[in-house]
Amino acid sequence: MKKRTEISALGEFGLIERLMGTVGDDAAVIADGRNFSLLSTDMMLEGVDFDLTYFPLEHLGYKAVTVGASDILAMNGLPGRVLFGLGVSAKLSVEDLEQFYAGARRACSELGMEIAGGDTRASVTGFAIAVTTFGTVPKARIVRRSGAKEHDLICITRNLGAAYLGLHLLEREKRALREVDDPQPRFAGYEYLLERQLRPGARKDVVDALTGAGIVPTSMIDISDGLASDLLHICRASGCGARIYLDRLPIAKESYALAEELNIDPVVAALNGGDDHELLFTVPLGLQERVVQLGVGIEVVGHITAAGTGAALVTPDGSSIPLRAQGFETV
Amino acid sequence: MKKRTEISALGEFGLIERLMGTVGDDAAVIADGRNFSLLSTDMMLEGVDFDLTYFPLEHLGYKAVTVGASDILAMNGLPGRVLFGLGVSAKLSVEDLEQFYAGARRACSELGMEIAGGDTRASVTGFAIAVTTFGTVPKARIVRRSGAKEHDLICITRNLGAAYLGLHLLEREKRALREVDDPQPRFAGYEYLLERQLRPGARKDVVDALTGAGIVPTSMIDISDGLASDLLHICRASGCGARIYLDRLPIAKESYALAEELNIDPVVAALNGGDDHELLFTVPLGLQERVVQLGVGIEVVGHITAAGTGAALVTPDGSSIPLRAQGFETV
Repeated sequence: MKKRTEISALGEFGLIERLMGTVGDDAAVIADGRNFSLLSTDMMLEGVDFDLTYFPLEHLGYKAVTVGASDILAMNGLPGRVLFGLGVSAKLSVEDLEQFYAGARRACSELGMEIAGGDTRASVTGFAIAVTTFGTVPKARIVRRSGAKEHDLICITRNLGAAYLGLHLLEREKRALREVDDPQPRFAGYEYLLERQLRPGARKDVVDALTGAGIVPTSMIDISDGLASDLLHICRASGCGARIYLDRLPIAKESYALAEELNIDPVVAALNGGDDHELLFTVPLGLQERVVQLGVGIEVVGHITAAGTGAALVTPDGSSIPLRAQGFETV
Repeated sequence: MKKRTEISALGEFGLIERLMGTVGDDAAVIADGRNFSLLSTDMMLEGVDFDLTYFPLEHLGYKAVTVGASDILAMNGLPGRVLFGLGVSAKLSVEDLEQFYAGARRACSELGMEIAGGDTRASVTGFAIAVTTFGTVPKARIVRRSGAKEHDLICITRNLGAAYLGLHLLEREKRALREVDDPQPRFAGYEYLLERQLRPGARKDVVDALTGAGIVPTSMIDISDGLASDLLHICRASGCGARIYLDRLPIAKESYALAEELNIDPVVAALNGGDDHELLFTVPLGLQERVVQLGVGIEVVGHITAAGTGAALVTPDGSSIPLRAQGFETV
């Protein structure tokens, strides 16, 4: 009998490594004279990455551009064009797709991007979205996952876990309202969390601010899988360890409030929640004050350590908890 | 009530035009000094574009690269990199995906291309493949759909309808073997048709031969939707009409044989079958002998006519049958 390894046995990154030989950066790099072209593809699948019962199509289009642009920004690049490959089920109307494109256009306009084309196919199953993003970066300014050095500061932007908690809120309301005739979801006070899930913005402002200040991070990644998983990518690619400090993790007050209500650990949400599309990057130790003062919500949460020291979360009492990547479940 | 237009009411290209404002070329063009970058995205969805019960994964990987490379070649470009966005269901094993990549790598190696990365997600439904292809073309050599001029010759490569007939053969065997214990499909004599469906090659040899001869077509397109539909794209983009001659249509002898067996009109298969991934292009009238003598299977099937004259198939008795594009059904 043919050998059969379940994909879940390898995990998402184990699978990519096995298939591709390497996990690589957020975008493919195409060398072309003084500039590099950057290219990334992301898949977003109904039932896995979004639920159309509560995800408005306009927001989905907006988020698709954010997801793609974040990959380019994570290489310190300027996202320029986006192409959509859509698998469209008969459930969706033309107006639905116009809503999708309206949201995508709004995100593009905010980021100075353009929709360059794509492909649309009928789907017999759910709505499938492939987002391809093209960008450029001057050769001297490209940032990869592999450049972090011992003693570098670990920086993250804005706050973490909010998108994950927003998703939990939407799922709770979906369950609660299933049996109700005239549903009125109760989201009051948590609008911020919904926005972080349904309409996250790509952090072009952060890359612009770093560029304006003449700062080139030593490594960078888009936080899409959660801080723990994405920091482990940096450590692995750079051949280093990391220490991040629990009391430094930026978590929004709305995240604390909902986490308590839902009985979720807000730190777990911040470490493993994913979908935040904030940036995680490292800079040399001497730049601490300058990055914090850029005014774009950069927080220093830890530092890079020597190879072989592992990656860990340090609690206020000084104990170290090893960071683990989240699993990858095929369903 | 919100307005709801069924996607089938617009057709695939009507939909793209409504959403994007224009249908455009096979690939997006990014101007960058003396070279243009070309970028295309194609979606291939299980149950719509392929059936895993008879489509070996290695061939599917090979075909995915062909589909992507053809878009770049159709702009007279050199395909360079490919990225895959995969939505992977639990039905597929790691070995299956390795087969997929093995096929993709073989196609890349034949075409001088590289796999540059991608994204892999769990899918709750079928196998979804997004192929993103990146290529380049010198500014002076780019070919679009919009450059055909009156009196230009309409050229196609190799022959048409074989991929469509190969698909019919596979579907027939699938039905026939469903109830049989030890299925032995009967494909003898039709191997060529199976290969055209399961393992079509991208026509880099044609683009190389044209380039080597210093010939730049006035317009070009990849025949993915069928000759009729793709010629109508050229006519529309170029603002012209076309006449193609029934007795000039190149149809393989295996296609004639199977068409007769299955009671399918081989001309309909050639006009509307799609999936051939051959090239359709136009050149000035004076180049007839030169293109035919390139030795890469180029056939002249007709000529471009003035705007307002429509596109038609001319039968041997001199009557004109207007060409129509195929519909786009969401299922």
